[in-house]
Amino acid sequence: MDFIKIDKDYLEVLTEWRRDFHRHPEPGWLEFRTSAIIADKLEAWGYDVFVGKEIIKGNSLGVPKQAQANVFYNKALESNIRAKWLEKMEAGKTGVIGVLDTGIEGPTIAYRVDIDALPILESSAEHHVPQKLGFRSENEGFMHACGHDSHATIGLGLAEQLMKRKDLLCGKIIIVFQPAEEGVRGGSAIVSSPLLDKIDYLFALHIGIDVPKGTFVAGVDGFLATSKFDVTIKGVAAHSGINAEKGKNALLASAQAALALHSLPPHSEGVARVNVGTLEAGSGRNIIPSLAKMQFEVRGETTEINDFYENRVHQIFDGIGAMYDVGVELEKVGYSINTPSDHELARILTETAKLNPSIHEVIEYNDFKAGSEDATFLMKHVQQQGGLATYSIIGTNLAAGHHHEEFDIDEEDMLFAIENWLNVPFSLYRGVDRP
Amino acid sequence: MDFIKIDKDYLEVLTEWRRDFHRHPEPGWLEFRTSAIIADKLEAWGYDVFVGKEIIKGNSLGVPKQAQANVFYNKALESNIRAKWLEKMEAGKTGVIGVLDTGIEGPTIAYRVDIDALPILESSAEHHVPQKLGFRSENEGFMHACGHDSHATIGLGLAEQLMKRKDLLCGKIIIVFQPAEEGVRGGSAIVSSPLLDKIDYLFALHIGIDVPKGTFVAGVDGFLATSKFDVTIKGVAAHSGINAEKGKNALLASAQAALALHSLPPHSEGVARVNVGTLEAGSGRNIIPSLAKMQFEVRGETTEINDFYENRVHQIFDGIGAMYDVGVELEKVGYSINTPSDHELARILTETAKLNPSIHEVIEYNDFKAGSEDATFLMKHVQQQGGLATYSIIGTNLAAGHHHEEFDIDEEDMLFAIENWLNVPFSLYRGVDRP
Amino acid sequence: MDFIKIDKDYLEVLTEWRRDFHRHPEPGWLEFRTSAIIADKLEAWGYDVFVGKEIIKGNSLGVPKQAQANVFYNKALESNIRAKWLEKMEAGKTGVIGVLDTGIEGPTIAYRVDIDALPILESSAEHHVPQKLGFRSENEGFMHACGHDSHATIGLGLAEQLMKRKDLLCGKIIIVFQPAEEGVRGGSAIVSSPLLDKIDYLFALHIGIDVPKGTFVAGVDGFLATSKFDVTIKGVAAHSGINAEKGKNALLASAQAALALHSLPPHSEGVARVNVGTLEAGSGRNIIPSLAKMQFEVRGETTEINDFYENRVHQIFDGIGAMYDVGVELEKVGYSINTPSDHELARILTETAKLNPSIHEVIEYNDFKAGSEDATFLMKHVQQQGGLATYSIIGTNLAAGHHHEEFDIDEEDMLFAIENWLNVPFSLYRGVDRP
Amino acid sequence: MDFIKIDKDYLEVLTEWRRDFHRHPEPGWLEFRTSAIIADKLEAWGYDVFVGKEIIKGNSLGVPKQAQANVFYNKALESNIRAKWLEKMEAGKTGVIGVLDTGIEGPTIAYRVDIDALPILESSAEHHVPQKLGFRSENEGFMHACGHDSHATIGLGLAEQLMKRKDLLCGKIIIVFQPAEEGVRGGSAIVSSPLLDKIDYLFALHIGIDVPKGTFVAGVDGFLATSKFDVTIKGVAAHSGINAEKGKNALLASAQAALALHSLPPHSEGVARVNVGTLEAGSGRNIIPSLAKMQFEVRGETTEINDFYENRVHQIFDGIGAMYDVGVELEKVGYSINTPSDHELARILTETAKLNPSIHEVIEYNDFKAGSEDATFLMKHVQQQGGLATYSIIGTNLAAGHHHEEFDIDEEDMLFAIENWLNVPFSLYRGVDRP
Repeated sequence: MDFIKIDKDYLEVLTEWRRDFHRHPEPGWLEFRTSAIIADKLEAWGYDVFVGKEIIKGNSLGVPKQAQANVFYNKALESNIRAKWLEKMEAGKTGVIGVLDTGIEGPTIAYRVDIDALPILESSAEHHVPQKLGFRSENEGFMHACGHDSHATIGLGLAEQLMKRKDLLCGKIIIVFQPAEEGVRGGSAIVSSPLLDKIDYLFALHIGIDVPKGTFVAGVDGFLATSKFDVTIKGVAAHSGINAEKGKNALLASAQAALALHSLPPHSEGVARVNVGTLEAGSGRNIIPSLAKMQFEVRGETTEINDFYENRVHQIFDGIGAMYDVGVELEKVGYSINTPSDHELARILTETAKLNPSIHEVIEYNDFKAGSEDATFLMKHVQQQGGLATYSIIGTNLAAGHHHEEFDIDEEDMLFAIENWLNVPFSLYRGVDRP
Repeated sequence: MDFIKIDKDYLEVLTEWRRDFHRHPEPGWLEFRTSAIIADKLEAWGYDVFVGKEIIKGNSLGVPKQAQANVFYNKALESNIRAKWLEKMEAGKTGVIGVLDTGIEGPTIAYRVDIDALPILESSAEHHVPQKLGFRSENEGFMHACGHDSHATIGLGLAEQLMKRKDLLCGKIIIVFQPAEEGVRGGSAIVSSPLLDKIDYLFALHIGIDVPKGTFVAGVDGFLATSKFDVTIKGVAAHSGINAEKGKNALLASAQAALALHSLPPHSEGVARVNVGTLEAGSGRNIIPSLAKMQFEVRGETTEINDFYENRVHQIFDGIGAMYDVGVELEKVGYSINTPSDHELARILTETAKLNPSIHEVIEYNDFKAGSEDATFLMKHVQQQGGLATYSIIGTNLAAGHHHEEFDIDEEDMLFAIENWLNVPFSLYRGVDRP
Repeated sequence: MDFIKIDKDYLEVLTEWRRDFHRHPEPGWLEFRTSAIIADKLEAWGYDVFVGKEIIKGNSLGVPKQAQANVFYNKALESNIRAKWLEKMEAGKTGVIGVLDTGIEGPTIAYRVDIDALPILESSAEHHVPQKLGFRSENEGFMHACGHDSHATIGLGLAEQLMKRKDLLCGKIIIVFQPAEEGVRGGSAIVSSPLLDKIDYLFALHIGIDVPKGTFVAGVDGFLATSKFDVTIKGVAAHSGINAEKGKNALLASAQAALALHSLPPHSEGVARVNVGTLEAGSGRNIIPSLAKMQFEVRGETTEINDFYENRVHQIFDGIGAMYDVGVELEKVGYSINTPSDHELARILTETAKLNPSIHEVIEYNDFKAGSEDATFLMKHVQQQGGLATYSIIGTNLAAGHHHEEFDIDEEDMLFAIENWLNVPFSLYRGVDRP
Repeated sequence: MDFIKIDKDYLEVLTEWRRDFHRHPEPGWLEFRTSAIIADKLEAWGYDVFVGKEIIKGNSLGVPKQAQANVFYNKALESNIRAKWLEKMEAGKTGVIGVLDTGIEGPTIAYRVDIDALPILESSAEHHVPQKLGFRSENEGFMHACGHDSHATIGLGLAEQLMKRKDLLCGKIIIVFQPAEEGVRGGSAIVSSPLLDKIDYLFALHIGIDVPKGTFVAGVDGFLATSKFDVTIKGVAAHSGINAEKGKNALLASAQAALALHSLPPHSEGVARVNVGTLEAGSGRNIIPSLAKMQFEVRGETTEINDFYENRVHQIFDGIGAMYDVGVELEKVGYSINTPSDHELARILTETAKLNPSIHEVIEYNDFKAGSEDATFLMKHVQQQGGLATYSIIGTNLAAGHHHEEFDIDEEDMLFAIENWLNVPFSLYRGVDRP
């Protein structure tokens, strides 16, 4: 069977979807509108569709405050969104899973994309394409600055293209539109959905990440395991001039905690990182600070290394609470693990992608020690049940780096990513004994 | 000569003024409207009036940001304020001095009040009198919560009453409406005005401060000398996971600075206080924090003790800059010294106040170790030129403590304060050889 | 009755005793030889004598290590000391109480002196009198550098002089030779002896302390309450290059503890002091430090202030243990409280001392905010049972300050101190109704 | 030419030498006796011998205090050592270089061993072989616990064996007995000797390091670059109760420095380590500590990474000095760089060693990320001049780990190490074009 190329005109469809998502970015756990639009299309094409509360069975980390949730919920309400989807969602319960069960014996193949945006104010510079072409974010202060608008679009395009070829398929196709990847919050919450059990092959993907246009990386390793924490330290205020001894100083507590966190030892078994990213404490110059808040993270080359630091974090804050006689609320607001891609599946995907004439270079496997990614939960889950998983990168031309206010992609590359994935089932049917 | 009682009806006038000030609170260094109203009245009554740039000759500490300045400047513009006053003012150059020179030989007697408000959101509880009677702050987020509206009123009432008795006066009368006492910013800036040279007797005053209604404290000591600082630490951002070593960590720098400040030693010669009141650092969880800001203060029982700590503050931040290779901008945004009231003048004022039938108890002298006050600059200036100075407290019933959102006074007590001060010249003419 | 002057020749006796004590200094809780010599004399003169285990009924703080104890125990064994006294002693159980019960109704009058030396290497400079006259310390590294040799001598001299006048006395005389005053360790341990109950008048005393020769201070206040702590932090060693994460870093734990202690707030009710005096941590450059030791102290103008800091100390170390996952052994090795002298008794003693022609100036009462002193326990105990207590200072010429390697006194002043105390019973019999 | 095996009886000679060195361990820079013995033998065999001041031309880091130097100098004087060698040495100027110039054209081949001992108290357990056989350290508190006694012996044995075969040699042979490897102090000092210029092939070696008996590792990489520092912080003492503000607190300065050092960021380009190994501060519980000393180190996978931390160390202490107004003396007492072995030379040596029937396994190249080693200076020097260098490990049975009080080797393995090195010239003459 030949490599299936999608008609070039289809890029117009993809572009329209992507720009719509781009104009309406929603932060993690609040992807009400995004989820509803995806669900609508999947349903229309014939997928079994599961939304929000139907798929988020685990503990939702880092759910935004109710006030912000209300803003996006109300925006969604005001959009032309069907109530049936909204009723299935709430803050911390978003995202969509589409299932196409052919009824014919065969493998279960899953694709996973993410759909959330970032709290970044998008550039309004005239040279910034979304501004120039009129699809700049309409939710001021939020932006698809990491390409998840294109990921959602790739998932949709793949879904439609697969459905068009339903008669050629066997087994089961699952397309996962995971919420809240930013801050690695959604992966651990969606993985416990029974819909995601017994997957034979799992494909996840990112656009960009310094991979040049025309290049496709079939498998990667090296996402650092990480835990994200918010901590609130509650002391007691007092007037610094009048009765300082009555206060319990949350600012000093947080200062010592920050130093303790940053002076944690390195780890002999691999890369480790600790960062206290933000600290806010106190209310006035002459008041003993009664409140402090910190946002911080730890990372490890392996899940075990990350666990080591997570354990130390708990010890530090147990200690800080006692030391300063303050209340400490330590909340884990994000979490991801390290899961290497399977070399075997990377090899299969490599061979498929090499057939794509739009891809000039295919890298089979890359050790990519940089950020973190919570698709690793689903990858690990699949592997533990005997399946194979790989995480790929589709190259593109970036207008600016990820998380930059002028981030933008080359939309054409969405099409090539879909093509690579679309051909996977047929590669698998041919080449593998597993199913 | 008998004690001069002011007609009770005059309280209505005072009340109207005070409530007008209360409705239009202006923070320190932005008292455009307040100053203009005071200047108008003083001019109408025949005082020589000096405003803003004419009187602020020193370094204005802690001047608000331009954006906030514009807000209050525009509010003043929109009021019915005469342009001639506004032209004499700008952010950091506000306040009024009124001079009545009798032309007859005699002592120079000065009275000093302050006029600025606080960045406090006034209560809108129905039982809060300004709310109930309709004179709650119209500048949301700002409030006369320390009684400086009444101080301005006392200054005005005194000015009018003295002018009415101009024929009985000799020497020179100076009434100082000092800006920016909150945060002890205005005292050191106004004291270098040549108008304030060669004062023989200086009277300053506060309402409330836990002194009960009907009580008058003629002289106090014990205001702590203090220096207020804002510091900005500028590092370099970097991604904590990717290249942490490229960052220069402003958060850790501020944490160590806070610990260094709080671990400064006590002082054997008297009370000392250090407080880091606020700390804000960092911009995101996975970014090495490139910016940190702290607001802090030191205090000392004597000016010398305060100087000791001020010197140590500079050393600490010199060190922090080097230690973390960060930029440090240390700004002194407030400053006051310790100046004891003169016992001799307190005694004279005591005798005068005892004649006031509305005052039930006069306390000649109090050691009052609590807050700080920048009238001390003018007091010290007067003393250094051979004059006498005293700081008094007029008791009142407080609805809530100073700086509380429901702070309120008993307006009647403004009248009694004016009476005590009004009778001072005649006491002095009689009882003292000095002039 | 006239003021009793002691024959001048008696100074030779005192001098011999004092120089013997000076040559054989013993640190607190190890005053084996010193106690035995005192006990011998008291017994010979007819006192009921109680030693070591018979009088130390409370918890002995800060007892030296066994190795050092053995050194001084063996020295005592080798001296010409009677076994009967040594049998009553052990490290932490030293000191002597002598009782003279006249059998005649009358008040119980107690005198308290201290007898321990300091771990200071005495000067061997030729101009240092003990060196020149041959009574420099024979226990290298230990020295009577605070005058307790003279205090012991004063106690003995008083005992002998009182016994000589036994027929003139009534009531009961108690002379307390308290061990381990240095580091404020013995006071709280001896006070629970039943021998010290129901004292009507208590006199304690120090020589020197910047009071000039010829001056006597009858009563003082202002000894700071204090708690002394030793802390041992036990972590786990690891090679810093190979597996740093296996270590538990006692050095960093101690650094954070030191900063937390020094950044404790000041106290609005009075003077407070915190000092980490010594810190030793770690064993090698490339080893994660597994052991740290600190010696520190807190002080407060009142016992309540000191209690505040003591409580915070416990919180800090509870926290440090958790924070660094280290073992923490916090030992209180010294403790004293604040007890003001009774003005009434100071007045009585003043009148007595004024009769002494060798004393040129008597100061009735002094507020002396400086060091700490554990005679305060016995003073408080007496006061709580309805008695009166006063702490005096006998002036002298000091060769160098207290705790200096060239410290020395003018021996003649021991005689005057004894005279002042010797006359006290007769003053009391005359002037006071209490007994 | 066949592989040259040395007669087995020669092991007795080696054993005698090694046990003599073991009985007389000398710490780095004080190897007076060791150097003299080596020099004696080399001279007797016909080598040109250069000692101490003749070879140490660079800056000697971490030279011991004079008092300790005197102890070892006097020990050497009392031994049967020739004055001519001692005259060429002083503390910081020790070690020997022996040169055999054949006068025949050929390559310059250098061997480098080290000769210093450690400040470790050797075990006196009966099962400890040096104790059992009577060659335990006679310098109490010092011990050859890292095998440098065997390294010196290997160097000597090689020298004698080479000289015996002088007629077969061409070119120049240089044998370097480097002092003060412990603490990486000697390497940077000896490398500037002109004798060490223009070396074609350099061989360095260590015994043990977890390589099993019978195994030889021909080339290694991965020694971490490192800098060792001693810092002395000089403040001002004051009585903590009386005038704490007069003090300048060296203990707090050191605590903040320790936290700053340990909170230095990780490095994205490789392994990095920081450790404050020891901290001693303060003299008494109630004294503001005026003196603090720390021993610490930084390490980096590359010299550049190490340089980054070294630079930050200087910044930190510049800052600490300013922050606490204390004097800071920062001394670099050890330094080494990272230099990979040359693969080409490792391959040549591998082939040679494989011919040795006593060696069962030869590992050509190992990445050995663990400790640090200052042979790297000479290796780098050789490479920069166009030569080749390799660092080898000869396996042995260790009685206990390096730096352990019961460390011991299997003496037989010295012989095999000599054999491997002895055959090198002939391998090189044959197999390589270079000379």
